[in-house]
Amino acid sequence: MRVRGIHHLGVAVEDLDEAIATYERLFGAVVEHRGALESQGVEAVSLLVGESRVELLAPTGADTPVGRFLARRGPGMHHVALASPDLEGTLRELEAAGAELIDEHPRRGLFGSEVAFIHPGALHGVLTEVVSSG
Amino acid sequence: MRVRGIHHLGVAVEDLDEAIATYERLFGAVVEHRGALESQGVEAVSLLVGESRVELLAPTGADTPVGRFLARRGPGMHHVALASPDLEGTLRELEAAGAELIDEHPRRGLFGSEVAFIHPGALHGVLTEVVSSG
Repeated sequence: MRVRGIHHLGVAVEDLDEAIATYERLFGAVVEHRGALESQGVEAVSLLVGESRVELLAPTGADTPVGRFLARRGPGMHHVALASPDLEGTLRELEAAGAELIDEHPRRGLFGSEVAFIHPGALHGVLTEVVSSG
Repeated sequence: MRVRGIHHLGVAVEDLDEAIATYERLFGAVVEHRGALESQGVEAVSLLVGESRVELLAPTGADTPVGRFLARRGPGMHHVALASPDLEGTLRELEAAGAELIDEHPRRGLFGSEVAFIHPGALHGVLTEVVSSG
């Protein structure tokens, strides 16, 4: 449907500051935002890597979605986010195409964004987020 | 170092045609290239998703890097590729910064590209490829 492309790549890490330092040192990445989403038990940093964006995610505790991901699979790529100029419309189109949605309607994401997640089973194992992005 | 941003997201799948159909149906993706890299035991398709690129990878057999990845983790995100205008220079800078390289020099990648992989241990579990891209 109408997506602009990759908004960011979400990466689960154990130590946020150490991961920021790695991306700064290896790729000259620049911190764009830092914040937390208490409802999801996650602290996050948005990094600009060239013209793209990597979102580093660290759990606030073991019994959180990212904490369980780290326990099960270790650090690594967690999700990919696609940018949509019309998030609600994209969700209705995805639903009509038979994709299983985790969030049927937009919800508040990190850094003030509006987001919705699609079930990884709908996309060959890739947890995919759609971010509202004008 | 000097990377332009995300060149593509590499996704390991069981069935290439089924995965192409999913990305076409859900996101209006368009096939850019299709080809194989015999030396790596992989058949691949490059998809344009909006202004971004997703590379679908299917193994030609079980005893290949992608075949072993699927057996161990199931389908899902396999690597991220960053675009560099000077691949050899980027590799030397990464080495000087202490990053462990899988390929110390550029090698032939998919679709005629020149690529090199960085060890996931250098990037918090993320297998990262650098692609020469003027």
